[in-house]
Amino acid sequence: MNDDELAVLNANDTFYQAFAGHDYRRMDDIWASERPISCIHPGWSPLLGRGPVMASWHAILRSEGLKVEPLGARAFVSGDSAYVICYEGAQARPPMLVATNVFAREGGAWKMVHHQAGQMSQPPETIASGPTN
Amino acid sequence: MNDDELAVLNANDTFYQAFAGHDYRRMDDIWASERPISCIHPGWSPLLGRGPVMASWHAILRSEGLKVEPLGARAFVSGDSAYVICYEGAQARPPMLVATNVFAREGGAWKMVHHQAGQMSQPPETIASGPTN
Repeated sequence: MNDDELAVLNANDTFYQAFAGHDYRRMDDIWASERPISCIHPGWSPLLGRGPVMASWHAILRSEGLKVEPLGARAFVSGDSAYVICYEGAQARPPMLVATNVFAREGGAWKMVHHQAGQMSQPPETIASGPTN
Repeated sequence: MNDDELAVLNANDTFYQAFAGHDYRRMDDIWASERPISCIHPGWSPLLGRGPVMASWHAILRSEGLKVEPLGARAFVSGDSAYVICYEGAQARPPMLVATNVFAREGGAWKMVHHQAGQMSQPPETIASGPTN
């Protein structure tokens, strides 16, 4: 794993720490501020633009009981763009959600520009790293 | 909309034309060949690498009755990377799926590197373009 991949995985961790910690300020900071952003919560239609996306996170983080953590995260970096695929686990139960998180480099830091999480019909058989191609 | 966004939306259309046309050769061609690729079908765990991803499409395209088309597609381009958000409709019913499609420029052409489609709990109220930030 190279430095860029590590940095992107760190940004991905920051997103989930903000999520699990109900930390709106940190959540606001991890999302890009210089580019369009978008977000597809599980079951939702897409939200486009900073206003709707951050309003959704403000509402979600106000609710209790969500302790989402990333599992088996894999980063794919190309220049100043990247995306991460990971499972989303909660409370030590097998993960039932999987996410695509898209990042862009802004001022030297990786910021989230898009998130889609969706339901799996069954938990994954294994959660591990492996060859990607 | 600029030329890059148009070109990315054309690549996105090509993906769905291959899908609707059960055209495995075209599907194989629209996916990147020089980079890792990954794919999350609705309800599935992620598939990583060209072997598993293309095997899944081979199986899906062999089945009849899937006439998926993109609706309300929006392209977000940054350098040689891009992603598209669109609904996936079928047979003129309201769309119940929404997708994130990630593209990268390979040899001057936009190729798909990642696809995630997921179920919505209800169809979108509107399918339209609008300001993104």
